[in-house]
This record gives sequence, structure tokens and C-alpha cells, in this order.
Amino acid sequence: MALRRRRPEALGLAPGSITAVPGAPPAVIRVISYDADGVDERSVERVSDLKSIRERSTGVSWINVDGIGDPECLSQLGELFGLHALALEDVVNVHQRPKFEDYGNTDFVVLRMPSLRPQLDLEQVSVFVGDRFVITIQERPGDCFDFLRDRIRNGKGRIRRRDGAYLAYSVLDAIVETFYPVVEGYSDQLEEIESRVLANQTENVVAEVHAVRHDLRALRRAVGPTREVLSAMARADASDSQGDTHIFLRDCHDHAVQLMEALDTNRELASSLMDMHLSNVSMRMNEVMKVLTIIATIFMPLGFIAGLYGMNFDGGVSRWNMPELRWEYGYFFAIGAMALTAIGLVLFFRSKGWLGDGGHEDKHQSEATKGTPDAGRD
Amino acid sequence: MALRRRRPEALGLAPGSITAVPGAPPAVIRVISYDADGVDERSVERVSDLKSIRERSTGVSWINVDGIGDPECLSQLGELFGLHALALEDVVNVHQRPKFEDYGNTDFVVLRMPSLRPQLDLEQVSVFVGDRFVITIQERPGDCFDFLRDRIRNGKGRIRRRDGAYLAYSVLDAIVETFYPVVEGYSDQLEEIESRVLANQTENVVAEVHAVRHDLRALRRAVGPTREVLSAMARADASDSQGDTHIFLRDCHDHAVQLMEALDTNRELASSLMDMHLSNVSMRMNEVMKVLTIIATIFMPLGFIAGLYGMNFDGGVSRWNMPELRWEYGYFFAIGAMALTAIGLVLFFRSKGWLGDGGHEDKHQSEATKGTPDAGRD
Amino acid sequence: MALRRRRPEALGLAPGSITAVPGAPPAVIRVISYDADGVDERSVERVSDLKSIRERSTGVSWINVDGIGDPECLSQLGELFGLHALALEDVVNVHQRPKFEDYGNTDFVVLRMPSLRPQLDLEQVSVFVGDRFVITIQERPGDCFDFLRDRIRNGKGRIRRRDGAYLAYSVLDAIVETFYPVVEGYSDQLEEIESRVLANQTENVVAEVHAVRHDLRALRRAVGPTREVLSAMARADASDSQGDTHIFLRDCHDHAVQLMEALDTNRELASSLMDMHLSNVSMRMNEVMKVLTIIATIFMPLGFIAGLYGMNFDGGVSRWNMPELRWEYGYFFAIGAMALTAIGLVLFFRSKGWLGDGGHEDKHQSEATKGTPDAGRD
Amino acid sequence: MALRRRRPEALGLAPGSITAVPGAPPAVIRVISYDADGVDERSVERVSDLKSIRERSTGVSWINVDGIGDPECLSQLGELFGLHALALEDVVNVHQRPKFEDYGNTDFVVLRMPSLRPQLDLEQVSVFVGDRFVITIQERPGDCFDFLRDRIRNGKGRIRRRDGAYLAYSVLDAIVETFYPVVEGYSDQLEEIESRVLANQTENVVAEVHAVRHDLRALRRAVGPTREVLSAMARADASDSQGDTHIFLRDCHDHAVQLMEALDTNRELASSLMDMHLSNVSMRMNEVMKVLTIIATIFMPLGFIAGLYGMNFDGGVSRWNMPELRWEYGYFFAIGAMALTAIGLVLFFRSKGWLGDGGHEDKHQSEATKGTPDAGRD
Amino acid sequence: MALRRRRPEALGLAPGSITAVPGAPPAVIRVISYDADGVDERSVERVSDLKSIRERSTGVSWINVDGIGDPECLSQLGELFGLHALALEDVVNVHQRPKFEDYGNTDFVVLRMPSLRPQLDLEQVSVFVGDRFVITIQERPGDCFDFLRDRIRNGKGRIRRRDGAYLAYSVLDAIVETFYPVVEGYSDQLEEIESRVLANQTENVVAEVHAVRHDLRALRRAVGPTREVLSAMARADASDSQGDTHIFLRDCHDHAVQLMEALDTNRELASSLMDMHLSNVSMRMNEVMKVLTIIATIFMPLGFIAGLYGMNFDGGVSRWNMPELRWEYGYFFAIGAMALTAIGLVLFFRSKGWLGDGGHEDKHQSEATKGTPDAGRD
Repeated sequence: MALRRRRPEALGLAPGSITAVPGAPPAVIRVISYDADGVDERSVERVSDLKSIRERSTGVSWINVDGIGDPECLSQLGELFGLHALALEDVVNVHQRPKFEDYGNTDFVVLRMPSLRPQLDLEQVSVFVGDRFVITIQERPGDCFDFLRDRIRNGKGRIRRRDGAYLAYSVLDAIVETFYPVVEGYSDQLEEIESRVLANQTENVVAEVHAVRHDLRALRRAVGPTREVLSAMARADASDSQGDTHIFLRDCHDHAVQLMEALDTNRELASSLMDMHLSNVSMRMNEVMKVLTIIATIFMPLGFIAGLYGMNFDGGVSRWNMPELRWEYGYFFAIGAMALTAIGLVLFFRSKGWLGDGGHEDKHQSEATKGTPDAGRD
Repeated sequence: MALRRRRPEALGLAPGSITAVPGAPPAVIRVISYDADGVDERSVERVSDLKSIRERSTGVSWINVDGIGDPECLSQLGELFGLHALALEDVVNVHQRPKFEDYGNTDFVVLRMPSLRPQLDLEQVSVFVGDRFVITIQERPGDCFDFLRDRIRNGKGRIRRRDGAYLAYSVLDAIVETFYPVVEGYSDQLEEIESRVLANQTENVVAEVHAVRHDLRALRRAVGPTREVLSAMARADASDSQGDTHIFLRDCHDHAVQLMEALDTNRELASSLMDMHLSNVSMRMNEVMKVLTIIATIFMPLGFIAGLYGMNFDGGVSRWNMPELRWEYGYFFAIGAMALTAIGLVLFFRSKGWLGDGGHEDKHQSEATKGTPDAGRD
Repeated sequence: MALRRRRPEALGLAPGSITAVPGAPPAVIRVISYDADGVDERSVERVSDLKSIRERSTGVSWINVDGIGDPECLSQLGELFGLHALALEDVVNVHQRPKFEDYGNTDFVVLRMPSLRPQLDLEQVSVFVGDRFVITIQERPGDCFDFLRDRIRNGKGRIRRRDGAYLAYSVLDAIVETFYPVVEGYSDQLEEIESRVLANQTENVVAEVHAVRHDLRALRRAVGPTREVLSAMARADASDSQGDTHIFLRDCHDHAVQLMEALDTNRELASSLMDMHLSNVSMRMNEVMKVLTIIATIFMPLGFIAGLYGMNFDGGVSRWNMPELRWEYGYFFAIGAMALTAIGLVLFFRSKGWLGDGGHEDKHQSEATKGTPDAGRD
Repeated sequence: MALRRRRPEALGLAPGSITAVPGAPPAVIRVISYDADGVDERSVERVSDLKSIRERSTGVSWINVDGIGDPECLSQLGELFGLHALALEDVVNVHQRPKFEDYGNTDFVVLRMPSLRPQLDLEQVSVFVGDRFVITIQERPGDCFDFLRDRIRNGKGRIRRRDGAYLAYSVLDAIVETFYPVVEGYSDQLEEIESRVLANQTENVVAEVHAVRHDLRALRRAVGPTREVLSAMARADASDSQGDTHIFLRDCHDHAVQLMEALDTNRELASSLMDMHLSNVSMRMNEVMKVLTIIATIFMPLGFIAGLYGMNFDGGVSRWNMPELRWEYGYFFAIGAMALTAIGLVLFFRSKGWLGDGGHEDKHQSEATKGTPDAGRD
Repeated sequence: MALRRRRPEALGLAPGSITAVPGAPPAVIRVISYDADGVDERSVERVSDLKSIRERSTGVSWINVDGIGDPECLSQLGELFGLHALALEDVVNVHQRPKFEDYGNTDFVVLRMPSLRPQLDLEQVSVFVGDRFVITIQERPGDCFDFLRDRIRNGKGRIRRRDGAYLAYSVLDAIVETFYPVVEGYSDQLEEIESRVLANQTENVVAEVHAVRHDLRALRRAVGPTREVLSAMARADASDSQGDTHIFLRDCHDHAVQLMEALDTNRELASSLMDMHLSNVSMRMNEVMKVLTIIATIFMPLGFIAGLYGMNFDGGVSRWNMPELRWEYGYFFAIGAMALTAIGLVLFFRSKGWLGDGGHEDKHQSEATKGTPDAGRD
């Protein structure tokens, strides 16, 4: 799915060409420049304005671009900051898998930022990490960086005293953190479905589990490579710089590993739920068929007896011809034979355990599992 | 499948023998020679003509051969450009898996070029990359290089200013790009099948999914090794040359990874669709059987009552013999007993949830899934 | 599941912030300082008291903290012993997967301590290993270290003569050993279920196996990374120190491998039991349906014969109209025909092996498997 | 299977003991000695004769031994050419998996030579590669080397000008090439089964696919390690010798990879066919049951109406007792009610899509899949 | 399973403590000392006696201990030969997975020795390999080393001229060889089950395959790590010593690989047999249901016709009321209608292929598969 309509109008263009994405919002640029002493935050109309800001600033500049609908703006950014054309092409082709690329002077990172509005959306965030600047480019306005901006503004934590690599880490960490509530949401949904499946309710289970699995697959495709990106960045930072940003990146990598594990667990649970559901459905159908067949089987001999005494053998010709019909209590005899047959069959079925079985098992099962959904959770 | 009739007439020949492929079109040779200043494009009748072109040219020559039906021509090419006999043998045995081989002075690359006409066709393209030449050999006329030729002719992009390795990259990139619409086509087809499966339509699903899976397997066998080829080439280029072609190859490798991921997703989806379809079919059959059995079960007791009063016990002999038959409203009594039985059974079945269940669930299910096909797509 | 409600109130805080865990018990600190000559064991009210203890001690100090409800206390610990802020953050975010991190002067290890009370609980234990101290921090009071404390007090074994790394090993070994009875418990439960499944009992099997699998998944997520932690520690110790603690760690790693293997075996068994159970259920249902259908099938021809002689063809009009009805022994003839039909069908079904089959197979099967549950166990 | 009756009489012998294989044909030795100038080909009665041949020859000697029934002969060979006892033991224990072992002065290679006569047979071929000799030892007379012998005799290709390593390569290449028609045969068989499965024919499918899978497993066990053997030999040759034999070995390795891929594809296809077949069988059985149940369900209400008017309520007692029986057109009324019921049910079933469904789907399915078997093959 | 009751009484003991195993037989010590010139074989009462033997011997000493019920004896052995406490602890905790550990002066190897008496038993054999001694410790008397002892006594083969490492190899090789008949036994059993499954016999298949799979899992857990042990030992020997024992170990490793492959094949076969069996059972049940349903379906219309002419429409009121009842040949007409209906249905069912199908397919299938069990075996 992540492949649909890739570069539809870019077909045949030279590699590194930046094309307008039809319908994409225009670029809105905001810059936060800071060092240990102060913060300067402003909106920027033209890319060329960034030049003076960059020259004035002695600390780190965070340039945030919302909207990729303006190829011209991206080209100018590329020229100003020395970004590689292939990386810029990836910025507008928003179906990249998360990746980390080292272009010498700048690093290029692509991640996916999840949101539920209300359906799962995995917006591409492109991050360029340079010496004293970080550029983040998003598909649309609206992001998960407000907490981070507040930390910069308030000078809380160590961020104001650190370099661009730490800012890049903070951006990535904010994105990874955003996955937590999303993945938790799917865990909750699966648990809710689990409790319904364990209570033998079968409505909508197939479609809901199918939808959850679909989204889990998309999340796995986003988180899996993110894990590798963070591991590669931590390795690169540990060998290149003398700071300890790689410790923070390793921590962030740990979070991605944890998310991946949760996604794996959810996937297994989804698959196990589907199996239990199908087993439930088939159990239930079998139960229905069994009860109906038992009813039919009981009435079959009764109907036979009735049919027997509906025969027209002529009692006038011979006294051996159906003398029962002429007994005083013949009718009661027949009714009695029927009642005995029915009772006998019911007792036989019960002795075989075919009668009370279904309901019996259902009851036990749901009792036994009442405690399960909470069992062993931590 | 990719194995059928390999080297049927080459059996027992020495390794490196080039045999005529029966039915293959004869070779048509076209050369594009270019440097930053100009382009020279011509058809060539005899291989020997290439010699003078090559000597005249100061830039890069792209020799394109359509058709592998002329072993003599290939041998001469091999002699002229110093191509290894084993590589030439692979050119005519068109069942190679994509591979990259380093023969010292020339690199040899085999890829597969996909097309739908209308069935999936994966034509083998053999590429020799030399110092200042690139030779591409295709099974048949018709290829995906027209955009690339235009770029060379118009001098757009950087291609005219670059060396043969970059031309080779451009050729491979063009091939990889051709996979996108093909893979997208299968994604679309699977989504179309998905919407039908979610709407509980079962016609043709098995055969269509079987066919899609067949083609996905073939595509995976083509894209998987392509990925490795590009990764190996990028590594080789990064360590051998001082240019930056490896950055472009890495980008192209990224695309192959993306394609592979899309194929994996499609494969999972196909398998999941098959499961849902089988579950649907079995659900539906169960539903049919249940309704039919319920009808039979309701009529069984009714038939029994009718049979009961069809018995011929002689009311003349004893007043205990079926007095109902002689009641004034006996018939209504019997009809009423039947009606009560039928209504009672229907109510019982309804209370058990056996009656409205199927349709009910169907309805909910299709409602719940109406939104799904578009959910979480990006 | 291990992901639920991670950092709910820590959202947006700077990395390395330690937040209060709502509802977590306050920290209770106990210190055991020992060397080859003696043991000093005491409770500590304030973290600052540890300073003097540490200065006085010439041997190893084991600081055990029960309860993570006091962020202040953890910060002070961090300051006093030079623990990294990110590690301390992991201590209070109790959903870490087991891991080993080298923070230069101290190593940081996270493990999970299993218990059944009565449901599986995997408490996080954080261990800091320093030069001459080991800090263990647990979520709640109550642990598996009493045997270890006794060994230190009594001076049994080599522990009093060894350094902090050996104490850390002893702590990890005690935790790994705690997994044994827990995993054994699930083995026992699965064997009990297996004997019931082999005896064709089907009650509760689905729910019980589902619950066991759930806990096995949680245990695998705890033991798998523990294995890697121990392997990494053994490697680190073998290369860093000249002692032989790595031999003990390797032994402990062996135990984790053994546990993982037992969990794998249990997982396979659980999955195999589920298959057998479903096969049993479906066998049994088939059996029921078969018997019922056989009964119905036998009575169908009998009912037909009865219906035949219930026809009202007028024997007065023609002597060809149902002369049987007027035979002297017509009734006996009909009854005989019915009996012959019934016997014939029963014999036919028996010859086909449709009658005694089910019970027959059941009997053989349960006999054949009586010996199985104990077979091949060691 | 490849394990049966290994070393039955060798039990407890010292490693490296060569035992007679009961029933194995005696050894027949043929030598081809050649250099660029000429070929000398002869049969040899005693191993000792080889000594003089070897001394006389200035080129490469290919000693081919058919039959392993003569342990004495093998021991003498071993002594004469310095072959390791363990390697000779492997020659007579003909259940080795393909392997490549470097015994210093000689290399030892075991491969399997496939044939269909008519069942799959994988004969062990042991190859010793020395400085100027190659010894091939086969279980039985008859091999796939005739083309190779012709090439040596005729001096075609480069073989006469090359060393022993190239001869060894040629032998291995001949063996690998022999797998092609065998694997193709199974591909053909699977396609034939596929076309039958797609046409809904179910006869023999299970047994045939079971047999094909059995043979595919055996082939995979032969080809998989062969691939590794060739890769190891190519690596060893590339690092040891200055020739280019490793390029040929790499080519041969490519062929083994291709074969393995074809086997994987076949395995997937076999498994997919089995699934489709089982789905077909179950579909068809469901179809049968549905049609039969529909017939039964239609006749049930009809039978009820007939039973209704078979009741004996005494119309003489009350005019309300079954007045229909005394209507002039009562019979037609009853027949009409039956006909209407039957038609109504049929229409209801048709509206539900239960009637024409099966055949309808079948038809569409087979139409849709008519084109499939050839789709996407290349 | 291999985990049950590990260290039950050792709980909380210091690592390296050797505890008595309750019920284990006491230790019986036998020593074989040999060099190229002679063999000295004796039973030893006290461990201290070994000291003098060891000092006297100039060659290799093989100390074999049967029974692990005497912790004192093991401690003394450890002291005398410098064995590590952790290794000795592993000797009495008889649930170790096979492993190879290098304790500097001695190597420690744990393997499992299989036997069928009559159930699979995997006895732990601990092997210490020192400079000039090998100590083997077994759980119980009775082993697979008699052939090896004979070889030492008789001086056959090279063993008397080699060092301790070669003796250790011989011990391991003897153990690995013991797996062959055991694994073959399971192959035979599976083939026997296969022939029954192909002949459509279903008795006991589930329980037998379940038992075989259980044992195969245990064997895999024993052979898999054994393979790694032998590979690690071969590597260690190749790099440490200048002898050629690593060639023998590599050969032994090959055997373990072969065993593992056979176990994999058996596992696949078992799983495939289970699938075929379940498919058989379901086929057969479907067949039964189909035949029964066909019988019921044929009698349903017949019963309807009989019911029809059992209706009591009054022919006296109207000549349209069931005139058939008053026809001369009405009865024959009804019987004929029934016969025609029955024949028509039978013909219809036959034309649909519903009648002879089951038996037909069965017959073909068993014919087609008669040749299969032997096909392709070698």
C-alpha cells in the first residue's frame, strides 16, 4: 500500500528532480534558534531569510517546514544548506520507508509519525541533521513536537546546552514516543475483542481483527526500520563524536525495540484470536446442527409408529391384520409406545453426553475464562 | 517455472558456448555515443562497425541490442569488448536470476524487466558495464528506456556529464522504476478482491488470488535478487571509484527494498484474503445448512402430529381409540396443535439466536467493514 | 501488554526525568556490607546515610531498594553513586525488556523476577553494578534473594571472598533460578491438559491452553533477552577483568538457554495440544452426527413402507389395488419387510464399518495412549 | 530416509575402516589421461597399473571407478594417491550429504547424481581432486559424463588445455546440469496436477502431490548442500590458485542456486495445490450436501400437507372436521397447495442464491482460470 | 520436559555445590590405561587409588564412572584432576543440554546417549578431557562403549598410538553412532504409519504420530546442540593442536549434521502424515454422510408419494377427488411412479458423480500409492 501512486508525474525525470505534489499544502517555515543563553523563534516567509538568521545565530537552529507543496522552496533550502538532490526527492515522494543516510556534511533521516484521526495515519517526517542546524519537513501542519518546543523555550533539561545532534535525537525521540499511545490503543482494542471472543460473542470479530491486523502491519513497516535507523545513528554517533548523544540514541532504540515487541505480541494475539473465533463459530454451528439433528432423530421413530398404525391392512379379512387397531386401549398403547421411544432416546442421548454437552461446556468455559483477560498482565 | 527448457540444445556443450535460441528475434543494434558536448545516435548493421564508432567517440557509448537470435553477433561483441564467454552464455540462456558479476575489466549485470501484456512478462536484460561503454541486451524489441534516451538527447539532468557507471545506474534505475506500476497493479487487484471478500462475494476469488499469488512469487524472485545486485554494486562502486554514483545506486537499492516490502505486504494480504474467503464460504454454507435444517426440524413434529391423526385405530371398538377424531372441533384442535408447535419451535430457535443470527451478523459485518478498505492507507 | 500506560504522566518530559509512579510503594533501603572478615547489615532511612557506610566499608556493599514510589530517593542514589539519568528513568518505567547497558563506571542491568501469586507476575528488578557496590531496585517488597543473603551472612561458598561483579552474578543467578519452578509449573499444567486431551476430554481445554500460551509468551519475552544479557555480561567480563566471574556468568547463561528451550518445547506442546483438541472435538461431533444420521436413515425406509400401506387405493374397484392389505398375514408381511429392511441396513452399515467404528477407534486410541504421557520423559 | 542401514556391519569398527557393501557391483576402472596434445583412454584391471600410467602422463588423469563393491581396490587407490581413510570410508557409506573437504594435498567432494529410472534415484558420486588427477567413484555403472568424455576426446572447448581443477569443475558441472531435466520433470508434473485441480478434478491428487513432495524433499537435500559445496570450492580456488577456474565454479554455483529456487517454487506450488485441492474437495462435498438437503427440505412440507389430509378426523361428526376432504376440487386444492409450496421454496432458495450458486461458481471459476496455467510463465 | 525437578534440593546452595541425587546408583569406577605398548584395565574402589595409577601410567588413562549417586567421590575426582566446581555441578544436574566448555586445563563436554528400553531414554554422559586422561561419567551402568573398549584392548586401529583428544573423539563418535539405529527406528515407524495412512487406515494414527513427534522433539534437542559441540571442538582442536584429530571431529560433526537432517525429514513427514490422516478421516466421514444423505434423499420423494395416496379426499363427493385410488391399476401406477422416481434420482446422482465417487476415488488412490512408500528411497 505504501507504494501507491509513487512519482506519478515524475516518471522519466532525472534522479534527484523535485516535483510538486498535487494537493499538498504549501510550505510554512518556522525557525527556532537557541543556545544556552537564549531562544529566538520566528516564522519565515522566504527561504532566503534563513541565510541571515543562520549567520547571526551562534547556537543551534531548528528549521521546521510544514507542507511539501512548494518544490521551489525545497530547492532553495537544498542550495542554502547543501542538501543532496536525492534526499530532497525523497522528501516529496512521501512513501519512503524509515531510513538513515549519511551524505557527508549532513545526515538524512526519514521517519513516520503516527496519528489516529480517527484512522491510522503515518505521516512522513524528513529530518536533515547538520553541524549547527536541524531541518524537519512534514507532509502537513500538526505534529508531536510541542512538548519539545516548550522544553527549548523554557530551557528545561539539557537541550539548550547541547548541539544539533542532541536536537535531532530529541526530535526522533518525540516521534518514537508518539507511537506508544497508538500501539497501546490497538492493544486495548485486541483485549476488548479477546474478552468478547472468550465470552463466545462472534459479531464483527472477523472484520475487526482484519482491520487491526492491517494497521499492525503498517505500524510494523514503520517501526521495524525505525529501530534500525536508531541503531545505525547510535553507532555512527558513538564512533564519530566525543559526546554522549549515542547513549540517548541507544535509549531511544530500546524504545523502538519495545514497540516492535509489543507489535509482535499484538500480531500473535490477533492471529490467536482469529483462530479462537473460527473455532467458536464452528463449535456453535456444530452445536446448532447437533440439537436440530437430535430433534429430528427423536421424531423420526415417532413418525414411524404413527405411520405404522396409519396402514390400511384390512382387519375384516383376518384377525391378524393390525389387531391393535381394534384393541380397546390401542390408541393409548400407541401413544405409550411413542412416549417410551422418545424417553428412551432422550435417555440414550443423555447417557452419551450428547444433550447437555454443548451448553455445559459453554458455561464452564466462560466461567473458566472470566479471570483470564486480566491474568498475567503487568 | 523459470527453469523450463534451459539449454535444451546446449546439453553437453562446453561451458561458455553460445547457442542460437530457436524463435528468438535477430539482433538489432543501436548505439548512442555522447559526451557533455554532443550526442551521436545510429543503427549498426554489423558488429564490426562498432569498432570505428568506439574509436571515434571520446565519451560514453551505449550499445543496445534487441533480440538474442544471432549467436554470431554476440560472439563478435564479446571479442570486440572483451566480454567473458560465461557471461555471454548467460545472455542467451534467458532464465538467469538477477545477478552482478565482476569480470575484472567489465561488470556483468542481469536484471528482469517487467511488463503486463496483458500477462506478467519478466524479460531478461543483460548489461555489460565497461570503462566507457554500456551494452544492454534484451530478449525482444520494446523496452523502458525511452525516457532515458530522451534525457541523453536533451542533455537534461547530469547524465551527459557523467561516466559509464552512471549510465549503467540510469539503465538499472529505469528498470527498477518499471516495477512500480506493475506491483501497484497487483495491489489494486488485491484491494478490489478484498472489497469483494469483505462484501461476502465469493465468485472467482480462489482462482484470482491463486493467479495473483503466482505472479507475486515470480515478481519476488525477480526483485529479491535485484535488491542484492544493487547493494553489491553500490558497495563495489563506493570502494572502487571516487565518484558519487554509489549514492545513486544506494537510492535505487532503496527503491528495490521498497518494492520488496510492497510485495511482502501483498503476499500477506493475498494469504489473509484467501483465509477470509474460505471462512466466508464455510460460513455461508453453514448458514444455508442451518436454515434448511431448521425448516426440516420444524416440519418434523408437524408431520408427526399429522401422522398421529392418520392412524386407523378403530373408534367403533372403544371410545378411547382416538376420540379427537370424533370431536366437533378435532380438526381445528390438530391444526392448532401444529401451529402452536411451529410457533413454539420458532420462538425457541429465536431465543437461542439461531434464526436471525446469520443475516444479522452479515449486516453488521459489512457495515463495520465499509470503512476498512481505505483505512490506514497512506 | 508490557507496554500499557508507559510514562503516562512523563509525556513530554526531558529524557532522563524521574517521575513518581502513582501507587508504587515508597522506597525501603537495606544495606549489606561485607568482606572476607565480616558482614554488616542495616536498614537505612535516608540516602545520605549511605555515604558514610560506603566510606567505612572496605569490601562490597549491596544496597537493596524495595519500592520505586520515591523519585527523590532515586535521584539522590544516582548522585551519590554516579548513576546515569537515563538508567534511573528506566528504573521507574517498569516495562523495560531485560537489558544490559555499560555506562562506563557502572553497568546497568534490568531483569524480570517471576512469581505466581497466583497469576504470573514478572516484577522488574534493576541492578547497578559498580566497583565495590551493587544496587538492586525492585518494584515491590518481597524477593528471591533470601538464600543469597543467608549465604553472605554465613560466609558459605566463595561469595564473601569475591568482588562486586560476583555479587551481581549471584543476584542474577538467583533471579534466573526463580524461573525454574515457574516454568515447571506450566509444564505440569500442559501435561495435565495433555492427559485429558488424550483421554478425549474436551472441557475447558481451549481456554486453559489459551491462558497457558499467554503466560508462555510473557515468559519468553522475559527469558529471551535475559539470555542475551547474560551472554553480553560474560563476554564483557571475560575481556575486562582477570577474574573468572565470566565462567559463572556463562553457567548462568546456560541456564537461561535451558529455560528458553523448555519454553519452546512447551509452546510446541501447547500448539500441538490445541490441534489435537480441535481434532478431538471435530471427531466427536462427526461421530454424533453419524450415529444420528444412521438412525434417521434406518427409519426413513421403514417409514416409507408404513406410508405405502397407508395409501388408500380402493381394493373394491380392482383386485390389483393393494391386495396385500387383504391378505391374511399382510400385516405380518409388512412388519417382516420392515424388520428385514432394518436388519439389512444395519448389516450393510456394519460391513462398511460405519457402526462400531467410532467407539472402536476411541477405545483403541485411549488404550494406545495410556502409556504415552510418561513415554520418553527423563 | 537417507539414513537407512548406514554402516550396518561397520558398527564398532575403527573410524576410517572401509567395509564391503553387500550387493554393490565390483569396481570397474577406466582412465583418461590427456594434455593439450593428446588423449589416452584405457580400462585398468588392477589398481597397481595406475602407477605406471600416472608416471608416464604429463597431463591430467581422470580415473573413473564404477561400483564400490571392492574395498581392497579402494584401499589401494587410497595408498597410491594419498587419500584420507575417512574420505574413503565416506565413499562406501553411500548416504553422505554433498560436502567439500580439504585434506591438504587432495580435495574431497561428495555430490549426488540424479536420475529417473523411473523413480527418483540420487546416486552418490565421490570426487577426489589432486594436483594432476581427478578420481570419480560412483555407486553403479552408468553416468552423466559421456558429453564430457566426448569433449576431452575431441579437444573441443578449453578442457584439454586446463588443469585438474578445471576437470573437477567440469565433472561437477555435468552433475549439476543433470538436475535440470529432473527438476523440470517435477515442474511439469505439478503443472499437470495444477491444471487438473483448477478444473476441479480430485482423483489421485493427494497421493500424487504427496509423492512429488517426497521427491522434492530428497532433491532439496541434494541440491542445497551442493550449492554450499560449489560456493566453498569457488572461494577456495579464488584464494589458492591464480587461474580463473573459480569463475567457472561461481557460474556452476549460480546454476545450483537457480535449481534451489526452482525447487522452492515447486514446493510452494505443491503446498498451494494441496490447499486448493482440499478446498475443492470440501467445496464439492458441501455442494452435494446442499443439493441433497434442499431436495429433502422441499419434500418435507409437501409430505406434511399429504400427511395432513391423511388424518382421519371424522367428517361425519362435524362439518368442521376436514371439510376440504369433501370439497369437489379438494384434491386439486391439496395438489395445488403442494405445488405452490414447492415453487415458493424453490423461488426462495433461488433468491437466496442457494440453488444455482454451486454450478454457477464452478463455471466462472474454470473460465477464469483457463488462461492461468500459462500466465506469467517465461 | 528436560527441566523437571532440576536441583530440587540444591535450591539456594552456592553455585558449584554438588548434591546427592536421590535414587541415583552409587559410583562404580573403572580405569583403562594404555599406550602403544600395552593396556592396563582395572576397577577402582576409592578415588585416591587413581592417583598412583595416574602417576604410573605413561600413556592415556580413561576413567569411566557409572552412577552419580556419590557426591563425595565426584568432589575427590574434581580435586585430583583439577575439574571446575561448576562442571561437577552440571554432572549431577542431569538435565543439561549438550555443551562444550573450555576450562583452561580441561575441556568439559556433555552429551546425551540415546537408548530404547523400550521407551526413548537420553542418558547424560559427562566427559572431561585432560592432557593425558579422559573421564566419562554416566547416570547409570550400561553404555555404548564396548566396541571402543575392544578396540583399545586389541590395539586395532590407530587409537593406542594417539593421545587423549583422540580418545575423547572416539567416545563422542561412539555416542553419535548410537543415535543412528534409534533415529532409523523412528523412520521405520513413520514409514509403517505412512503405509497405513496411504491405505486409508485411521486407527491410532493420531496417538502414534503424537508419540513419535514427542520423541523426535527430544532427539532434536539432543542432536542439535551435539552438532554445535562437535563443530566447536573441531575448531578448537584445529587451532590448538598440531595433530589431525580435528579431521576426525569434523567427520563426526558430519554425522551429527546427517542425523539432524534425518530428524528434520522425519519431522516433516510426521507433520505431513498427520495432515493426510486428518484429511482421510474427514474424507471418510464426508463419504459416510453423503451416502446416508443420498439414501434419505431418495426415500423422501417416495414417502411423499405414499403420503399423497394416503390422503383421505372423499372420492364419493366428487370424481375429481383422487380418481387414481379408484383406477384398476392405481396401485401399480403409484408403485411405478415411486420406482421411476427412485431410478431417476439414482441416475441423476450418478450423472453428477455423487454415487460411485467415493469408492472409485479410494480405489484409484490406494492403487496409485501402492508403489509410493518405496519410491525414491535410497
